[in-house]
Amino acid sequence: MLSRSLTLNLVTTILVFAQSVSSLWPIPRTLQSGTTALKLSPGFEFKVDIPEPPADLLEAVVQAKTYLLTDNLGRLVVGRGSSDLPSLSNASSLPGLTLTLTTASPVLSISEESVADLTTRDESYELNVPADGSPATLTANTTLGLYRGLTTFGQLWYSYGGEIYTIEAPLWTLDSPAYPFRGFMLDTARNYFPVSDILRTLDAMSWAKINTFHWHVVDSQSFPLQVTAFPELSAMGAYAPTEIYSPTDVQDIIAYAAARGIDVLLEIDTPGHTTSIGYSHPEYIACNIASPWATFANEPPAGQLRFADPAVTNFTSELFTSVAQTLPSKFFSTGGDELNVECYVDDVLTQQILNATGRTLEEALDLFTRTTHGALEALGKTPVVWEEMVLDHNVTLSNNTVVMVWISSADAAAVAAKNFRIVHAPSDYFYLDCGAGEWISDDPTGNSWCDPFKTWQETYTFDPLANLTESQYPLVLGGEQLLWTEQSDPQNVDSIVWPRAAVSAEIFWTGATLPDGSPRNGTTALPRLHDLRFRMVQRGVRAIPLQPYWCALRPNECDLYA
Amino acid sequence: MLSRSLTLNLVTTILVFAQSVSSLWPIPRTLQSGTTALKLSPGFEFKVDIPEPPADLLEAVVQAKTYLLTDNLGRLVVGRGSSDLPSLSNASSLPGLTLTLTTASPVLSISEESVADLTTRDESYELNVPADGSPATLTANTTLGLYRGLTTFGQLWYSYGGEIYTIEAPLWTLDSPAYPFRGFMLDTARNYFPVSDILRTLDAMSWAKINTFHWHVVDSQSFPLQVTAFPELSAMGAYAPTEIYSPTDVQDIIAYAAARGIDVLLEIDTPGHTTSIGYSHPEYIACNIASPWATFANEPPAGQLRFADPAVTNFTSELFTSVAQTLPSKFFSTGGDELNVECYVDDVLTQQILNATGRTLEEALDLFTRTTHGALEALGKTPVVWEEMVLDHNVTLSNNTVVMVWISSADAAAVAAKNFRIVHAPSDYFYLDCGAGEWISDDPTGNSWCDPFKTWQETYTFDPLANLTESQYPLVLGGEQLLWTEQSDPQNVDSIVWPRAAVSAEIFWTGATLPDGSPRNGTTALPRLHDLRFRMVQRGVRAIPLQPYWCALRPNECDLYA
Repeated sequence: MLSRSLTLNLVTTILVFAQSVSSLWPIPRTLQSGTTALKLSPGFEFKVDIPEPPADLLEAVVQAKTYLLTDNLGRLVVGRGSSDLPSLSNASSLPGLTLTLTTASPVLSISEESVADLTTRDESYELNVPADGSPATLTANTTLGLYRGLTTFGQLWYSYGGEIYTIEAPLWTLDSPAYPFRGFMLDTARNYFPVSDILRTLDAMSWAKINTFHWHVVDSQSFPLQVTAFPELSAMGAYAPTEIYSPTDVQDIIAYAAARGIDVLLEIDTPGHTTSIGYSHPEYIACNIASPWATFANEPPAGQLRFADPAVTNFTSELFTSVAQTLPSKFFSTGGDELNVECYVDDVLTQQILNATGRTLEEALDLFTRTTHGALEALGKTPVVWEEMVLDHNVTLSNNTVVMVWISSADAAAVAAKNFRIVHAPSDYFYLDCGAGEWISDDPTGNSWCDPFKTWQETYTFDPLANLTESQYPLVLGGEQLLWTEQSDPQNVDSIVWPRAAVSAEIFWTGATLPDGSPRNGTTALPRLHDLRFRMVQRGVRAIPLQPYWCALRPNECDLYA
Repeated sequence: MLSRSLTLNLVTTILVFAQSVSSLWPIPRTLQSGTTALKLSPGFEFKVDIPEPPADLLEAVVQAKTYLLTDNLGRLVVGRGSSDLPSLSNASSLPGLTLTLTTASPVLSISEESVADLTTRDESYELNVPADGSPATLTANTTLGLYRGLTTFGQLWYSYGGEIYTIEAPLWTLDSPAYPFRGFMLDTARNYFPVSDILRTLDAMSWAKINTFHWHVVDSQSFPLQVTAFPELSAMGAYAPTEIYSPTDVQDIIAYAAARGIDVLLEIDTPGHTTSIGYSHPEYIACNIASPWATFANEPPAGQLRFADPAVTNFTSELFTSVAQTLPSKFFSTGGDELNVECYVDDVLTQQILNATGRTLEEALDLFTRTTHGALEALGKTPVVWEEMVLDHNVTLSNNTVVMVWISSADAAAVAAKNFRIVHAPSDYFYLDCGAGEWISDDPTGNSWCDPFKTWQETYTFDPLANLTESQYPLVLGGEQLLWTEQSDPQNVDSIVWPRAAVSAEIFWTGATLPDGSPRNGTTALPRLHDLRFRMVQRGVRAIPLQPYWCALRPNECDLYA
């Protein structure tokens, strides 16, 4: 752990605490910074002081340098930095940043460290930026930690009048995340997203130190995932031949993510949300596009796996195996949400099998779950499920199964009571798609169950430990914001996701308190979130403005009580 | 009027009513269409059978041809048109569309017709597309009518397998708008929009036959409009030197709009919403960026014109004159919303003038309004005001003043009772920005006054004649949807506006009933709105998806009661 192996560099200049640092998101857990201007030297260089550095670390350094030189972000004050000019004329120039590791060998790549077990994954780093013109240093136990430190370093710099500079030198942080799991979920089944949109999203995620891409890749509406063992699934279940993720696409996405410190948690949602399997395997699906759909599913089209059928169990196990064995992640999500038992009441095959085996539907579900999870565990994967598998069904799950709490934040306590590890994904705080009204047509109300819009302010108040006992705290792995894409596609993915999805990134990186020990709060967070948003726009992500530009340049002047 | 001067061409093939036409938005008021496939001939040509056609008509024809050849829109059915191939093999080919005018001379340009007085503006047209391979015809009384007809014609065509085709031939419509004013308002003061974003928005507006761009160009946060007589206003009040609309920019926008059948209604909001004038003329502004802002304004920053001061009245009249004389529109909006009288209570200068002149604040406002409106009327302009000028203040207004009802749709009746003409702009139906939560920071509720999101479905139910007596119906000029841009800028303008802003375009073009006489309803509208949305995306506008693609390809299968 970094706290043991790194030496705390005592900065000799006068330091103030983090309130003056307006540029960092998520804000580091420990931070000391000054108010001295410091320019980036025209000859600024990153020095990787590591024998045989991994290729992805060198690529990350090249990317970091590109951001430094091209962000061209003016400071968010009136004049966008013109008032900084006087202090810049006498400022020292930073000649470089030296990257070192605390351990000699073996040096693993960022990509390898990004998929390490959550209990040992090490994202910590120490960054020291002197104000006097001596080189900055970045030290970590892992290349992944160095990557996080590069991200922090890249957020310090503004441009004005040809200078690239910070006004917060000297700066020192010894930083590491409060929670190991900080995710973002994208649904690519309701509407399809080309690989390029996913890669851009991964870039944006990395800027907020999000470390898990939960890829809800298939669902009832479409099956865009090309599976080697079952190519017919996407051939017949994808929206179009051009709207398929080939094995190469998947590996490209995984590699791109891993090089940015992001693990890809793939989900194949079962046994509900599987209508699209019926295009190639109608024999596996009960109530297949049955009408009225609302009797059999929470949204159209209806159709669920006949999980009581051994053939379906075998198919699902093979499907999981075929996909999961190509993935480096330790996790794999089998879904398990919104199973509609009405679907099976009149399903002749299911009822025949239940009668023949003497099992109840729940017993059949238990067998299905144990078998399909067993296939994953044989590959060394840890299953991830939605909360219903724990709270609504009596299925046997390994103790290390990770449970995503989505229906309500209040359900975390019930999951913890069953001693499962938790990822917070509560619809009442973290669903990015809510608030656009009902997309089900011919609905006289026009309202959606997940209205209203989850504002960044409300999201920011989420407490990961609410209603848990202290002994249950270690069960909380972290959380993720989610985009279900019934009303989103490449046209609006950036604007619906950013910068809001960065909010949970800070909740789970920084934890409950700011570096000075005061509680996190939206009022002091806003200028930093503006900063991240404007930097995202400079980097080509269409993040939305949170306020009139007038307010963005004048912190607190648009506060309600200003 | 077209209904008199055009001969109804009786189509001899079997025709069905409009329910089968899924491609037109707004749907024409009269429409007959068949179910025969018709291909666009590879040699398809527009023929403009008009002596000395105006340049903008020829440009519109070139644009129409470009859309035909580049839209490349697959029909929104499973297979995106593959099922149309059999009927295409035997289909006739349309060799061309001939454009004619009913009147010989003088032929005015689209741009001239687009700014004609609303009472005489003529957008009607007759379009006839035979199924047998004989040329289509488009006839109108004006070039503006021809432009509307070209827009309708352009919505008929899909692409599949190298063919451009419709399956709704023969088609005949004699069409004209139910209401003369169909607008969209953009606020370019809370956040700035480059000219290119405005031009793209004008294109999208034209595709839905929206005929008024209400340009809320300045406000308290910024003054991006460069005014010839007062260049200091934008020099000091714009967000940045690069965020200014020069006189050339304004004329470019007006010309681009006019060539697309769109009148530009410019608004300089007074006497409230004027803080940004204070950057160059602090002497004209009361409670200038006063604190707490909430005492003096509905949003930060506070600051309003000292309208009791004759110098301010003179300045405002000259400001209006300098701007309005450069605009071809018959309308000019002087604003008049959200005047906060608290601002003047402690304003020494205002109180001195009121005492010296013996006027009340309301009497001073009346004088200010009469004088500044008089300056506009001297230029032949008709003032447009927000509803407060009629409902909350006792100011003298010309009878022909147009009043925009925004606070609540219920207020239309009170405005009509005062016998003013109405443009519906109700926040409860037409505000596109609502539903994103509060942008005022440090607000513990996080809720905004205009929550929730106005869904397209709810907007579509708006009744322009609700609560009015039949004798008041002629007062309703039409309506507009509006984007206030506290939380919008170029990053999300497309996705927050489209396709929702097309909803009022149909309400006010088509009126209450479909061509078959049945009431407009959201369920049958949705497939057509999908069609417009997908065509917008093909043309480069980032309109959002309204449903999963699965639903968009399967009309009514995602209805609540399907």
